[in-house]
Amino acid sequence: MNTTRLEAFSDGVIAIIITIMVLELKVPRGADLAALKPLIPPFLGYVLSFLYVGIYWNNHHHLLHAATKVTGAILWANLNLLFWLSMFPVVTGWVGEHHGASVPTALYVVVLLLAALAYWALQRTIIAAQGPGSLLRRAVGVDIKGRISPALYALGVLLAFRTPALSQGLYLLVALLWLVPDRRIEQVLADEP
Amino acid sequence: MNTTRLEAFSDGVIAIIITIMVLELKVPRGADLAALKPLIPPFLGYVLSFLYVGIYWNNHHHLLHAATKVTGAILWANLNLLFWLSMFPVVTGWVGEHHGASVPTALYVVVLLLAALAYWALQRTIIAAQGPGSLLRRAVGVDIKGRISPALYALGVLLAFRTPALSQGLYLLVALLWLVPDRRIEQVLADEP
Amino acid sequence: MNTTRLEAFSDGVIAIIITIMVLELKVPRGADLAALKPLIPPFLGYVLSFLYVGIYWNNHHHLLHAATKVTGAILWANLNLLFWLSMFPVVTGWVGEHHGASVPTALYVVVLLLAALAYWALQRTIIAAQGPGSLLRRAVGVDIKGRISPALYALGVLLAFRTPALSQGLYLLVALLWLVPDRRIEQVLADEP
Amino acid sequence: MNTTRLEAFSDGVIAIIITIMVLELKVPRGADLAALKPLIPPFLGYVLSFLYVGIYWNNHHHLLHAATKVTGAILWANLNLLFWLSMFPVVTGWVGEHHGASVPTALYVVVLLLAALAYWALQRTIIAAQGPGSLLRRAVGVDIKGRISPALYALGVLLAFRTPALSQGLYLLVALLWLVPDRRIEQVLADEP
Repeated sequence: MNTTRLEAFSDGVIAIIITIMVLELKVPRGADLAALKPLIPPFLGYVLSFLYVGIYWNNHHHLLHAATKVTGAILWANLNLLFWLSMFPVVTGWVGEHHGASVPTALYVVVLLLAALAYWALQRTIIAAQGPGSLLRRAVGVDIKGRISPALYALGVLLAFRTPALSQGLYLLVALLWLVPDRRIEQVLADEP
Repeated sequence: MNTTRLEAFSDGVIAIIITIMVLELKVPRGADLAALKPLIPPFLGYVLSFLYVGIYWNNHHHLLHAATKVTGAILWANLNLLFWLSMFPVVTGWVGEHHGASVPTALYVVVLLLAALAYWALQRTIIAAQGPGSLLRRAVGVDIKGRISPALYALGVLLAFRTPALSQGLYLLVALLWLVPDRRIEQVLADEP
Repeated sequence: MNTTRLEAFSDGVIAIIITIMVLELKVPRGADLAALKPLIPPFLGYVLSFLYVGIYWNNHHHLLHAATKVTGAILWANLNLLFWLSMFPVVTGWVGEHHGASVPTALYVVVLLLAALAYWALQRTIIAAQGPGSLLRRAVGVDIKGRISPALYALGVLLAFRTPALSQGLYLLVALLWLVPDRRIEQVLADEP
Repeated sequence: MNTTRLEAFSDGVIAIIITIMVLELKVPRGADLAALKPLIPPFLGYVLSFLYVGIYWNNHHHLLHAATKVTGAILWANLNLLFWLSMFPVVTGWVGEHHGASVPTALYVVVLLLAALAYWALQRTIIAAQGPGSLLRRAVGVDIKGRISPALYALGVLLAFRTPALSQGLYLLVALLWLVPDRRIEQVLADEP
């Protein structure tokens, strides 16, 4: 089994997740500018989640590119990642309706955290399947971003109960950290003959 | 006609089914932890159905891999399977809203049963199209899991009217039975020169 | 430009249409068998529309297979077909809620008719793009089914205002007419060296 | 990284956007012809947006065809375009419910304008990635349509507050301008050995 169908299926699910989030933006009630005002928080939430899902799609792309074969374990690790990404629309909708509230903010960060852990687990699974001398292991290296992100998310969960705004700032920061696509993988792959 | 487009279309439909189920998880009403409580049963229902659809996608993948040509009969057997999978979101939503109730539990198992029969019919159709000496027939062999599952589902329908919890435990068991991807097919294909 | 991306995009749209229709099946209100009763007409409507969309997907597959190149005209003829197929969910939902009523039945048949004409126009456009000696033209031949279907649909619109049940029987008949995939195209393609 | 997965993902998102818009067409309340009347403005809005998304898909297809490699910048420029296209369903729904109102009309044009700018930015990014002697730069040439469209949209925003009908006429005009697929790119590509 090669990675093509796994990529195609993941693309399909991610494409639908990114588009389903837009359904949370309800058609405004009135026909004037004031009717748009309640849409601003959900809109900002949509922008942030779109960014996040875009980052995941982007890095997922590089990750699967580095996978040379697909095992049953990789398949389920991938489904696990897709599961947590599929939680984005509902938590985005909740934060959008109650911006600044502690519990929705905390739950949003928990989902971000679990998605990050699922991504990390998928990475581990691919490396394990490649055995010693894994191309991906060398490409990932020390993986500072991969280690620091879950720590920041965990901090974000705690902050959500004290100052939700700070927590939201924190996960915007992590998003910016990841915005740059993971060049390491591409580079090691390019060096390979 | 080769299997590529059939796979791509099935992937599309399954990707949408898996994501549509998440729409049943409505944005909570309040902004505190208590508001999350009514979401727990639908969430567990979503997890179980995600697992089931993931298992079907996984095995469907192996099955079509073994199909060497696509006939009209295979096409319709495949659409029949997709039809029953497309029933998952609505029955999952129903069980999620009335967990522990007999009729929703029974209907959920009936849909699982019909999907299992549709899968089995698709397998038969592919084997029939390959004629005697079918690769898939040898790969599938005695097919214990394929024979035992419908029987367990049928038992589950009956149990749903007596002790729904037991019925739900039963279909969790069948899910676990199938969680291991069908290595038989891959193995016979790998042995083939 | 080759047909691959056109096929992939059409597959995506059709996969979504077929799955969106299932959203019309709302989760029942109660938890007993009686709660399922109001779902029967929408369910039957869903089955019929699933069948229709499946038939279109099937024949569309054969049709694009016969297209050797993609022109701007083919692209728009294809989008026109997808547009009318995208009307299926809403008219299916309407007939499902008011089964036996004249206007919903008539509108359903009108959409079937326009989809059939769009399919026919797509076929014409592909033949025109292939110029004289078109493979598809020979494959299609006299095209009895293609000629008789619009006539039957037109009759169905009239019947909808007199005896809706007869009209519904008529479009079930046309569906059965088309259930057999279009072997003509495959055969001519197979004969070609 | 090649353009295949980028195309596939974009196709997925666009296919879903085009189909999600149909969800704004609610099943009518009654069962007679009068029940259809409130559906006419949303239906016309759907037709126009379907046309627009179809045009974007068509030209996007040509654009990515001309991209020889995919950089991180192209990836994000593409996601930016998809983001603005994903705004179509909600603004289409708003205009459909309040046709002739200034603010919804203006917002619709603003989204059209931002999508046009995102398309233009994607084009610039691909040209920049190809460096001097870019194939796409020669293909696009002076790009009269690309320059005139944003100007017309900006005019449309202003007009929306005076005579919304004129504004709507203007963006129908721009749609017609773009209906003809961008033959320039294909031609230059065809000339290339």
